[in-house]
Amino acid sequence: MRALAVTEDGVAWVERPMPAPQPGEALIRVAMAGICNTDLEIARGYMKFHGVLGHELCGVVEQCSDARWIGRRVAGEINLGCHACDLCKKRMARHCQKRSVLGILGKDGCFATHVTLPLANLHVLPDALPDERACFVEPTAAAFEIIEQVPLDTRDEVLVVGDGKLALLIAQVIATTGATLCLVGKHESKLAIARELGIRVIDRAALEPKSFDVVVEATGSPSGMQDAISWVRPRGKIVLKSTYHGPLTLDAAPLVIDELHLIGSRCGPFEPAIAALASGAVRVEPLISVVVPFGDAPSGFARASAAGTLKVLLDMRN
Amino acid sequence: MRALAVTEDGVAWVERPMPAPQPGEALIRVAMAGICNTDLEIARGYMKFHGVLGHELCGVVEQCSDARWIGRRVAGEINLGCHACDLCKKRMARHCQKRSVLGILGKDGCFATHVTLPLANLHVLPDALPDERACFVEPTAAAFEIIEQVPLDTRDEVLVVGDGKLALLIAQVIATTGATLCLVGKHESKLAIARELGIRVIDRAALEPKSFDVVVEATGSPSGMQDAISWVRPRGKIVLKSTYHGPLTLDAAPLVIDELHLIGSRCGPFEPAIAALASGAVRVEPLISVVVPFGDAPSGFARASAAGTLKVLLDMRN
Repeated sequence: MRALAVTEDGVAWVERPMPAPQPGEALIRVAMAGICNTDLEIARGYMKFHGVLGHELCGVVEQCSDARWIGRRVAGEINLGCHACDLCKKRMARHCQKRSVLGILGKDGCFATHVTLPLANLHVLPDALPDERACFVEPTAAAFEIIEQVPLDTRDEVLVVGDGKLALLIAQVIATTGATLCLVGKHESKLAIARELGIRVIDRAALEPKSFDVVVEATGSPSGMQDAISWVRPRGKIVLKSTYHGPLTLDAAPLVIDELHLIGSRCGPFEPAIAALASGAVRVEPLISVVVPFGDAPSGFARASAAGTLKVLLDMRN
Repeated sequence: MRALAVTEDGVAWVERPMPAPQPGEALIRVAMAGICNTDLEIARGYMKFHGVLGHELCGVVEQCSDARWIGRRVAGEINLGCHACDLCKKRMARHCQKRSVLGILGKDGCFATHVTLPLANLHVLPDALPDERACFVEPTAAAFEIIEQVPLDTRDEVLVVGDGKLALLIAQVIATTGATLCLVGKHESKLAIARELGIRVIDRAALEPKSFDVVVEATGSPSGMQDAISWVRPRGKIVLKSTYHGPLTLDAAPLVIDELHLIGSRCGPFEPAIAALASGAVRVEPLISVVVPFGDAPSGFARASAAGTLKVLLDMRN
């Protein structure tokens, strides 16, 4: 089968044999897949991954030892734990030290016609969730991880730093908690979408220093962290949601003096993400810049890297 | 009165008028004072403070509008809030943005014969706590702050990184929680004191990566943070207890991938510190490298800066 991979020569088409599902796994015909900023970072060397890219997908189960799964439309969790270690036994398979991660670590991803995943990773999609929206389940789950780590309510004042596609998902997920929310960003076209989604956008110049209970850093850039430190209140929390390749330099003194909490945040729970996308509590249509046929994936990848682009989806059936 | 200050020309003797206590304040005759690593950092430019140094003290109230305080032996909290702002009203005066901090920010410190402090900052010392030990109330309170921020119990495995005087206080305070504890450091003479204090010392080579629930970074050096990141388990907590002047560079990827919590920690509660020092739950005699007469304070300061030194106390009555 044809697949888009990170190779020694950069992002390129490769040929791969059709994957064979192991017992407890399903073979999924990928219907649609999303290009994530992490994919762009991987192409720049993050995680030192060489293999088929892609971890945001929906598709239909084609082969499985349990016949009940065949024909089901699914989204798939991306971490594959060993199911034997202490972390897996503590329901922390997402942190298993022997894990592979779809399209990121030790396992070919979903920018291919087919992919295998363990049945334990699959979530059946409701009919109310068409493929375009279902591709956002994985990043929306990552946004829900924030409110699992930092429970929020109406007393909290929260700032989202960044206006990219992940930031726009995060802001919508935080809005579901009733917290007072605003978002700061640098790209007028993306901020217009934030406003369209009902998110309060605030100008940098209007931000009071040290005033937010929680600041979510989702710029994808190391400079966002110093901004976040300047806007969070003493004893407040900064959620670090950006993944980037390379070192982070910051002034540690405010971390200690203001007793800040800095919380790294990665993958999250699929169930609330599916529910929020199906109900419309999280809206993603405005985040879709373009749907590209899989055959044009390299140009889709280039488009995803361009300034001003939000989500690029790959239609894997074309 | 004579005082030891940070001046344009470095640490030097200065002459200051005797301070006059305002209503609600006490004038304290300083009995004994401790030199803290923060004092050494301030002498190197940290906090850009120019003024009388010193914030670890015990002494006797000499003047006060409330006569009941006169003659009492006290230790003093170092943060002076405005008592009007939201943070002060929320009992977070230690984080008041208009605060002054004894010998650190906007207020002359205790390396002088006398100092003033608000009565609200004073804690009467029990007779069981002689002056030498009472000088450790402030740093021991800072150690107690850790277990207020990160409640610990017998299920937790905790690593203290560092073997300086603050690390040795922190380890003893953590031991009071029943957590499984060990300490890693680089200075054999200090590690010997840790062992004498009943703290389990572990060799770097014996440390499993990603194995501790909580790692306390108390080395006073930016390199300690990268070590801490390598030893904490996924979703574990790193308490940043070092204060240092200058930027911190770290690899942010493990923070996000392992969803680490990084918690800055500064001043803490005096009550449990006084109780632990009085009961002997925290022992400080082995941490005292030398007691220097105040008249020899500059040489005491030089001694405190030398490798291998733990606490230098200044006897302010000599």
